Amino acid sequence: MIKKLINTPGEEVREMLEGMALAFPEIIRLDPQWNNVYRAYKKPSYKVALVSGEPAHAGYVGYGMLDAAAAGATFTSPTVPQVLAAIKEVATEAGVLVIIKNYSGDVMNFTSAVKMAQAQGIKVDYVVVNDDVSIAEKEKRRGTTITVLVHKIAGAAAEEGWSLSEVKRVAQKVIDNGRDIGVALTPCSVPAAGKYTFELGPDEIEFGIGIHGEPGVQRIKYIQSKDLAKIMVDKIAEDLGLKKGDEVFLVVQGTGGTPYMEKFVFYRDVRKYVESLGLKVFGSWIGEFMTSLEMQGGRVAILRLDEELKRLLTAPAYTIAVRITGPMTLPVVT
Amino acid sequence: MIKKLINTPGEEVREMLEGMALAFPEIIRLDPQWNNVYRAYKKPSYKVALVSGEPAHAGYVGYGMLDAAAAGATFTSPTVPQVLAAIKEVATEAGVLVIIKNYSGDVMNFTSAVKMAQAQGIKVDYVVVNDDVSIAEKEKRRGTTITVLVHKIAGAAAEEGWSLSEVKRVAQKVIDNGRDIGVALTPCSVPAAGKYTFELGPDEIEFGIGIHGEPGVQRIKYIQSKDLAKIMVDKIAEDLGLKKGDEVFLVVQGTGGTPYMEKFVFYRDVRKYVESLGLKVFGSWIGEFMTSLEMQGGRVAILRLDEELKRLLTAPAYTIAVRITGPMTLPVVT
Repeated sequence: MIKKLINTPGEEVREMLEGMALAFPEIIRLDPQWNNVYRAYKKPSYKVALVSGEPAHAGYVGYGMLDAAAAGATFTSPTVPQVLAAIKEVATEAGVLVIIKNYSGDVMNFTSAVKMAQAQGIKVDYVVVNDDVSIAEKEKRRGTTITVLVHKIAGAAAEEGWSLSEVKRVAQKVIDNGRDIGVALTPCSVPAAGKYTFELGPDEIEFGIGIHGEPGVQRIKYIQSKDLAKIMVDKIAEDLGLKKGDEVFLVVQGTGGTPYMEKFVFYRDVRKYVESLGLKVFGSWIGEFMTSLEMQGGRVAILRLDEELKRLLTAPAYTIAVRITGPMTLPVVT
Repeated sequence: MIKKLINTPGEEVREMLEGMALAFPEIIRLDPQWNNVYRAYKKPSYKVALVSGEPAHAGYVGYGMLDAAAAGATFTSPTVPQVLAAIKEVATEAGVLVIIKNYSGDVMNFTSAVKMAQAQGIKVDYVVVNDDVSIAEKEKRRGTTITVLVHKIAGAAAEEGWSLSEVKRVAQKVIDNGRDIGVALTPCSVPAAGKYTFELGPDEIEFGIGIHGEPGVQRIKYIQSKDLAKIMVDKIAEDLGLKKGDEVFLVVQGTGGTPYMEKFVFYRDVRKYVESLGLKVFGSWIGEFMTSLEMQGGRVAILRLDEELKRLLTAPAYTIAVRITGPMTLPVVT
């Protein structure tokens, strides 16, 4: 057994969602039949609705972002009936965009649910996020942090009443211009399994990790934050073909068990290195956005911006994890 | 050595503050001479200014909360000249309230700085927060989470132009009506020391911990979240003399390395138990507010409310860690 602040292993997703719904009843409601989280107030019918999966995404349900998050068990895809229930619950006349992360279980279950919804006459389309730059082959790249920026930007477009094809276009633009990479200093453990998903030596770093506790692509010797920042940013900058003068948005985050002190030291190092490449930092989110339970480590995501993305990124949002209200347009440190 | 996402041990506080100032230049500025963090824009002279210590408090500098945070090295009080520099930098004609946590080093250095500032003709007073209910003797109780609610409530009073004696009165009211308690599932480590501050067995919990990695008052066997919630809430409710029908504010937080999943499960259990006692939950903050580096564990703080405290608690604030803007009065999950 590995100590955690939970009750019976296997119940943790449900109990976490109950906690979120108790704390924020004006933002979300929990459907106990499916463990799905919906907005407290349904969106008007002329706006496209957004559906995504993963327990973490309950934090992004609310005005300006998602309409539904279907949560599977820890590190497991939600089932087809569960995703279908979410699509049916939030569907509007304008249609539904489903945002899928490129994990085989997710892609299979979400696309099946999309097909079943279409067969039932619901207007629904989807995008697949594959931003994890640590994997060379593009079709094998996992969906990680950029997923949350798709929620934010496509969500803002949906609130403005864009058509389904236009919301999909801008979601795909975020995917095409965003990359993410992560490292672990310590592993994590799924409660029901009661053991770590991999083992790491006291001077080792797991490089190029996913978000579900999978081992990375390479094991390296411990190096300092500024050296990690350089390697990680270089990997993204090369893959995206970033050029001097490009405007970018940064997401610098812990992996679930990383204290704020380390997150801000790491942010400092990422930011300084990004600026040393001649890139312009339009803004940043620093905190915990797509994490792996108690794992200590860090992730960096970079999104290349244009005027359209900048406007939608800073448009109002009101969710548990991201609040952009009034004239103060910076996101919360969450 | 214990792996961390930092650079040279001993530089982590400075580099964290640099990261915060790079990310939020419209909220804070860093004085590199003293490692002090000030508001980006100075408060008008008719408002009382608020000064506190601790690296973490840089997250509470900004409109509606602190004017200055003086940061010592990790788990060390800031020095007398450093605190004096902070007081002098933000002092207004209305005066300065210094918020001190009840740790011997802090009390000594902060009260010395207060006396020196008074000798230089600055109007300055202070309060001492001693909310850690795990210690029986009241004068030995450490200052922990309630400190942040003093920042919030006294900060709102200061923005409204209250006199120094009135701001001090309401700060003391928060201290008199607030209690906190914490547990650790794992220890933490100061970077320069390179070792854990205590050792815990795989089925042990350290009960009644401070915020600087000190051992707790008791070592107990591992129990589930809902059982911990009951013991911790009972301890506070008894000490505060809470009665059925009392209105309370909850702060439920991790200790730095606790993932959001566990924080929300623990919140659920605290909230349900608090309500089972007949207490009314006015609102909650859930996140990381007063933490201990990478320690895994949890803290619960409860503040008994009246109409004055409720109003000031939900008044606008705009800091890195707490944002209350416009009509949406819930704090961020930070």
